[in-house]
Amino acid sequence: MRQILLLNGPNLNLLGQRQPEIYGHETLADVVAACTRVAAEAGLSLVAHQSNREYELIDRVHQARGQMSGIVINPGAFTHTSVALLDALNAFEAPVIEVHVSNIHKRESFRHHSYVSLRAEGVIAGCGVQGYELAVQRLARLIG
Amino acid sequence: MRQILLLNGPNLNLLGQRQPEIYGHETLADVVAACTRVAAEAGLSLVAHQSNREYELIDRVHQARGQMSGIVINPGAFTHTSVALLDALNAFEAPVIEVHVSNIHKRESFRHHSYVSLRAEGVIAGCGVQGYELAVQRLARLIG
Amino acid sequence: MRQILLLNGPNLNLLGQRQPEIYGHETLADVVAACTRVAAEAGLSLVAHQSNREYELIDRVHQARGQMSGIVINPGAFTHTSVALLDALNAFEAPVIEVHVSNIHKRESFRHHSYVSLRAEGVIAGCGVQGYELAVQRLARLIG
Amino acid sequence: MRQILLLNGPNLNLLGQRQPEIYGHETLADVVAACTRVAAEAGLSLVAHQSNREYELIDRVHQARGQMSGIVINPGAFTHTSVALLDALNAFEAPVIEVHVSNIHKRESFRHHSYVSLRAEGVIAGCGVQGYELAVQRLARLIG
Amino acid sequence: MRQILLLNGPNLNLLGQRQPEIYGHETLADVVAACTRVAAEAGLSLVAHQSNREYELIDRVHQARGQMSGIVINPGAFTHTSVALLDALNAFEAPVIEVHVSNIHKRESFRHHSYVSLRAEGVIAGCGVQGYELAVQRLARLIG
Amino acid sequence: MRQILLLNGPNLNLLGQRQPEIYGHETLADVVAACTRVAAEAGLSLVAHQSNREYELIDRVHQARGQMSGIVINPGAFTHTSVALLDALNAFEAPVIEVHVSNIHKRESFRHHSYVSLRAEGVIAGCGVQGYELAVQRLARLIG
Amino acid sequence: MRQILLLNGPNLNLLGQRQPEIYGHETLADVVAACTRVAAEAGLSLVAHQSNREYELIDRVHQARGQMSGIVINPGAFTHTSVALLDALNAFEAPVIEVHVSNIHKRESFRHHSYVSLRAEGVIAGCGVQGYELAVQRLARLIG
Amino acid sequence: MRQILLLNGPNLNLLGQRQPEIYGHETLADVVAACTRVAAEAGLSLVAHQSNREYELIDRVHQARGQMSGIVINPGAFTHTSVALLDALNAFEAPVIEVHVSNIHKRESFRHHSYVSLRAEGVIAGCGVQGYELAVQRLARLIG
Amino acid sequence: MRQILLLNGPNLNLLGQRQPEIYGHETLADVVAACTRVAAEAGLSLVAHQSNREYELIDRVHQARGQMSGIVINPGAFTHTSVALLDALNAFEAPVIEVHVSNIHKRESFRHHSYVSLRAEGVIAGCGVQGYELAVQRLARLIG
Amino acid sequence: MRQILLLNGPNLNLLGQRQPEIYGHETLADVVAACTRVAAEAGLSLVAHQSNREYELIDRVHQARGQMSGIVINPGAFTHTSVALLDALNAFEAPVIEVHVSNIHKRESFRHHSYVSLRAEGVIAGCGVQGYELAVQRLARLIG
Amino acid sequence: MRQILLLNGPNLNLLGQRQPEIYGHETLADVVAACTRVAAEAGLSLVAHQSNREYELIDRVHQARGQMSGIVINPGAFTHTSVALLDALNAFEAPVIEVHVSNIHKRESFRHHSYVSLRAEGVIAGCGVQGYELAVQRLARLIG
Amino acid sequence: MRQILLLNGPNLNLLGQRQPEIYGHETLADVVAACTRVAAEAGLSLVAHQSNREYELIDRVHQARGQMSGIVINPGAFTHTSVALLDALNAFEAPVIEVHVSNIHKRESFRHHSYVSLRAEGVIAGCGVQGYELAVQRLARLIG
Repeated sequence: MRQILLLNGPNLNLLGQRQPEIYGHETLADVVAACTRVAAEAGLSLVAHQSNREYELIDRVHQARGQMSGIVINPGAFTHTSVALLDALNAFEAPVIEVHVSNIHKRESFRHHSYVSLRAEGVIAGCGVQGYELAVQRLARLIG
Repeated sequence: MRQILLLNGPNLNLLGQRQPEIYGHETLADVVAACTRVAAEAGLSLVAHQSNREYELIDRVHQARGQMSGIVINPGAFTHTSVALLDALNAFEAPVIEVHVSNIHKRESFRHHSYVSLRAEGVIAGCGVQGYELAVQRLARLIG
Repeated sequence: MRQILLLNGPNLNLLGQRQPEIYGHETLADVVAACTRVAAEAGLSLVAHQSNREYELIDRVHQARGQMSGIVINPGAFTHTSVALLDALNAFEAPVIEVHVSNIHKRESFRHHSYVSLRAEGVIAGCGVQGYELAVQRLARLIG
Repeated sequence: MRQILLLNGPNLNLLGQRQPEIYGHETLADVVAACTRVAAEAGLSLVAHQSNREYELIDRVHQARGQMSGIVINPGAFTHTSVALLDALNAFEAPVIEVHVSNIHKRESFRHHSYVSLRAEGVIAGCGVQGYELAVQRLARLIG
Repeated sequence: MRQILLLNGPNLNLLGQRQPEIYGHETLADVVAACTRVAAEAGLSLVAHQSNREYELIDRVHQARGQMSGIVINPGAFTHTSVALLDALNAFEAPVIEVHVSNIHKRESFRHHSYVSLRAEGVIAGCGVQGYELAVQRLARLIG
Repeated sequence: MRQILLLNGPNLNLLGQRQPEIYGHETLADVVAACTRVAAEAGLSLVAHQSNREYELIDRVHQARGQMSGIVINPGAFTHTSVALLDALNAFEAPVIEVHVSNIHKRESFRHHSYVSLRAEGVIAGCGVQGYELAVQRLARLIG
Repeated sequence: MRQILLLNGPNLNLLGQRQPEIYGHETLADVVAACTRVAAEAGLSLVAHQSNREYELIDRVHQARGQMSGIVINPGAFTHTSVALLDALNAFEAPVIEVHVSNIHKRESFRHHSYVSLRAEGVIAGCGVQGYELAVQRLARLIG
Repeated sequence: MRQILLLNGPNLNLLGQRQPEIYGHETLADVVAACTRVAAEAGLSLVAHQSNREYELIDRVHQARGQMSGIVINPGAFTHTSVALLDALNAFEAPVIEVHVSNIHKRESFRHHSYVSLRAEGVIAGCGVQGYELAVQRLARLIG
Repeated sequence: MRQILLLNGPNLNLLGQRQPEIYGHETLADVVAACTRVAAEAGLSLVAHQSNREYELIDRVHQARGQMSGIVINPGAFTHTSVALLDALNAFEAPVIEVHVSNIHKRESFRHHSYVSLRAEGVIAGCGVQGYELAVQRLARLIG
Repeated sequence: MRQILLLNGPNLNLLGQRQPEIYGHETLADVVAACTRVAAEAGLSLVAHQSNREYELIDRVHQARGQMSGIVINPGAFTHTSVALLDALNAFEAPVIEVHVSNIHKRESFRHHSYVSLRAEGVIAGCGVQGYELAVQRLARLIG
Repeated sequence: MRQILLLNGPNLNLLGQRQPEIYGHETLADVVAACTRVAAEAGLSLVAHQSNREYELIDRVHQARGQMSGIVINPGAFTHTSVALLDALNAFEAPVIEVHVSNIHKRESFRHHSYVSLRAEGVIAGCGVQGYELAVQRLARLIG
Repeated sequence: MRQILLLNGPNLNLLGQRQPEIYGHETLADVVAACTRVAAEAGLSLVAHQSNREYELIDRVHQARGQMSGIVINPGAFTHTSVALLDALNAFEAPVIEVHVSNIHKRESFRHHSYVSLRAEGVIAGCGVQGYELAVQRLARLIG
């Protein structure tokens, strides 16, 4: 069975708890459960990891090389600042879908630019936590 | 039965014919068929319209006021240039999901900015024509 | 009797209906009625036209050449994007007064620049729909 | 009887004398007379003050707090440079209409930005000295 | 006999009538006649179309796909604003030569950038209406 | 018989030898021969000079004052950097046509700006070496 | 006994009266009283001056040369615009602490830059009127 | 007894050792001791933590949610680069005071912008290590 | 005997006292004496005025209209910020020479731009206080 | 025997494995072996460390203070984003040589700026993995 | 007898002949004669050189090292483009005065920046050819 | 025996004489001697040329085509300004290594950009004159 990786970056452990007017009330556990279900429907198993540590995200991407059939990633704030994460993803050979819970284009201007979008095949923003499910669906079809 | 509007902007009548390395091989008819099916699964009927005419898109958005439960829109090149379309969407009271077939963030810099993103609830880019289906799914959940 | 042209651009057909906190509750019909009255007091007849179509506004300006003694124009969103409309006005030989219902300088930064202001004699913004009446007054004195 | 304040900034004491191709031939006294008349027609009394001194304009705005029903202001060159005047107007609770005799958008680029426009309800530019009268009319309707 | 398309954008119907100090005294009919003659000398037939409507230009470019051996285009003001026209030309497979009657680099800064130049093989500016003839000559040699 | 000057700037001595995918296979000698022929057809004699030396181009322009009826110039890389060459051309009283073999607007951004275009009557880019011939044609008509 | 100067710029005479959601409810008299007390505890006497006049602030700084052991200054809007005040402070030889009642970095972008910060030893912003007291404490330790 | 958190970012473990002309001679231990004393005077207990690890600072802020009555933070270099830290602070519900030992506005331009200032209530810079004490005082009054 | 005006702006009363490494050791009295002598040699009488007050400089320029044959002005810090002073000088009909004691182009970037240079005939910077004398010489020849 | 430190930043553990068209086929172990040899020839011992963790690089630089005679560093992506690493290097008293395997000036614009170059004595880019050896040679001569 | 060098850059050989509305009617020979006279009055001998060749100006500056007591230079267009000339002047140890015949701040924006001003002690612009004489006077006093 | 070219640009003839705090005390002759020796060790003969003349550097690069196995170039100030030199190097088919004696990234901002870096394989800066030797070593390995 093919595997995909669901990566979440800094502060996403607080999903559902902080700033619900921006991020909603569903938790990261809810997201993982929903994505696992969507992946399973597509015959994929899903491994999920969240970290506030840039290097852990980088290491996970490194480990995914040759192991994972794709990555769904919400880089959190690293979206806008981490060239290192971009470089790690550049070293990954399978598809990448980027997710943002909120519509980053409606927020502060420093959130409008994404380093990860320079690498990702697809980008889904502002679809709430459902965006993760849509990303898994997209990944499934790309892999399929 | 609630209705949603699928709007496509300039040059999207050529979908599947022009620059397939960017836009793929599926046609606009394929897109409409797929979206209609996805909408139907969610209990929604879908009305589709494509135009190379900015005013026709604006007029359609005006007509949608009070009639449609949501809009999925790929504004094509008007994404980057049409404040008038943004203003029309600002006058529309239900959810809007913006779709781009290609990942516009990997293309020329003038394609990185979207006026429509200042209004849309969600933005889906680089998911190929499947992006339309994902957008309908999102709209369905928002309306639902 | 000398004639003046009152031109309104995209989305202004919705005046009084959309975003009343920005644009107020008076309709375009109210505006035309008020302006016709003000013009008549100054011995001018007024022809009004609204269009969401850039080309229709351009064509109307072309027709006004040699026929109209002046133009009051609210270019709507074309204010910020239409060099073509500017060029049409550059080909018109009589005075032009530009009107904006809202104070565009307090809104998003892309609304701060006006191509039409590079041609117009006068610019009136943020005076609500009364701004149209003031513009007709100004035109009347210029034509005087 | 309600009062309004007509404030004029630096160099406007020379109105009608300097650069008539830009500012015309009417003097500041003409302007005050005309505005007083327009105000009277609307049942308002008008107090006029011109100063080349930034602080005097600020002090006058301070004094106007709770006393004046509105301000018509041509800040002259302070338009583009005086945050202090903006702050004074921010402390004033009634409507403000900004006037410029010339169309500042057709002049040097440093004249395109106005601090006062960030506060003013309405802005009238390029209508010559008639712009003052139009501003009083607008103020009258707002107060009315 | 191979065909080429001569497309003219907004306001060029006024050629010879408006701003002759910039655009000269020859009319669009003169231009079409001269170009037809130059094309005929090169064994090409020429179809000419002018429109103030962005969509009409786009539609014409769409129709030219597979039918025309090349396009000479003066996009008028759309040069600087129409990504939609650029996209249409990107979907056209034969050579494109861009013409401007005036030297746009000597005019306002917003006229210095051309979206069409990102696609066109050649660009001819400031050669008056003779520029059209030179463009046809170039197209003839490219096709030849 | 009236004379025109054909000036070529740095690296154009390598025309036909370097980067043929950009500049084609024709040599500078080919260009001079073709232009001489085109000039002769218009009753003009042509003097050609190429130099990698900025001062030589300047000196040649100085000498052309009062002697030459026009200049066709491909300033090469000096296009983008030489204010001195612009100043020399500003001191020349007859028409100047600027030529670029490649379409500089499709290349690196530092090639998009031309100092010479601030002075030249006409600009022809991306028409290959034929661009020189078109420039001579234009000059001939201007002089003629 | 050593003296320090407490300088307040334009509009700060309205402290406690205008925009209390930004500036709070304490008055300038409250501030002076609190600072005098804090200074006295540190063995310093405090002279306070507020002015809406740029020149008065400059003159006061000039007078402070060789007389005062330090300056606490809230330049108000002159923070962002007065090079002249900066130059006066550059001519003052003892420490300067800059205070802003509100956090200027959260407000309009033109309030993010301070000329005075190029000279001041310390900068305290967004600590409300307590910021003045903290500034006096800092000055006391520097002088002490 | 209410608690406050004193957070120090990267390289601040070297306080007193590196670049004393910028940062002075007092060590971080001195700072903690002084702040603990100031806090105690205000009836607050203080927990201090320094880390060169962005994630540790983020985790500490997360832990502080609902536990701490306020945070004094010197984010060190993360001031200018860490959106992730800003987001963590955005998820913290009590007051935040930002401290910089040096006056960052007098240093390299990339030190002039602070992400943390977009969230912090107050900002104190250039007051040396005393700045920490002033920050605790401010926090005490806000909490008090 | 014709008169010229020597105007000095803010902080120049401290000439010779503040920052002598930038401004030297000569006082404003020295400057006035030297300029008076140079003017007298050219048959001109000189009136000198220094003020830290922007309005006083403006008023003096207004008074000079029709009275003075030229102005030598060192606007001090107003050089970089006062559009009002520029406007006053624009209303003055005789020559203006601008002087800066230091070479402003070697100092902070905000000192590189001068509003007054947009009006002045000549600009002399970095020639120390001798620059004033040179300016008077220039004025003398222009008037002469 | 004197020691030098060879530091490698994020993703350089993949050297020789990822994007070989940019980074070549030699591994980090190859690099360390080569550098150790070059250092030994110069009488230096070399300690090598690679980390994807910003803090580990910072900590290593801290430890190097007073211990190491120099540092060769390839900061990887932190080159462009880590002010914290720059600050750590600013606290290091011996020479620093910066290495990049690829020529960063030919890549995306965000790779053109290096914070580390503001501190490093020398910078070597685009010399492949040999660049490390050259850096050790340079360090050896500086130390020697 | 001490010597000074008068250097003139490209196109200044045409002084008095080209664009007299900008540069006046006096020739370079007139300038040299006048400057020689002014220098002689100050006990200095003057060597003059004009060149359109950047390298010749550089070589002359190199030769002046240790030989000349100062340089008056009008770099012509190299003012704005030649870092090489700046570097040559940086290697010259005596005073440099920069002259521009016209007021470059009133001309095209690319003429507002001067590389030479980063090195020159003094800058004189817009004083016509008299500016050279003033520059020699300044040099004389500096040397004297 | 294969040959390489060592090119030095403007002002480098003064190496060791000017600004030794930036460029050190070794002369260009020292550099050539050292590089010749390093080249010889690698079995290469080295031809050296220095010029203050842009065209001579261009001509030398032209001559090197097909003759030289590589170029080491220190373009001096032309680094930042000469597109013509870049174009010449673009026409050269073998490797190019760029050298700067000083670390240009620590100097004025106009020295941070290099046109030559857009073409060079490797760039070595701030390694003093040893940088030349390192460049020859790199070239030797590339050629080898």
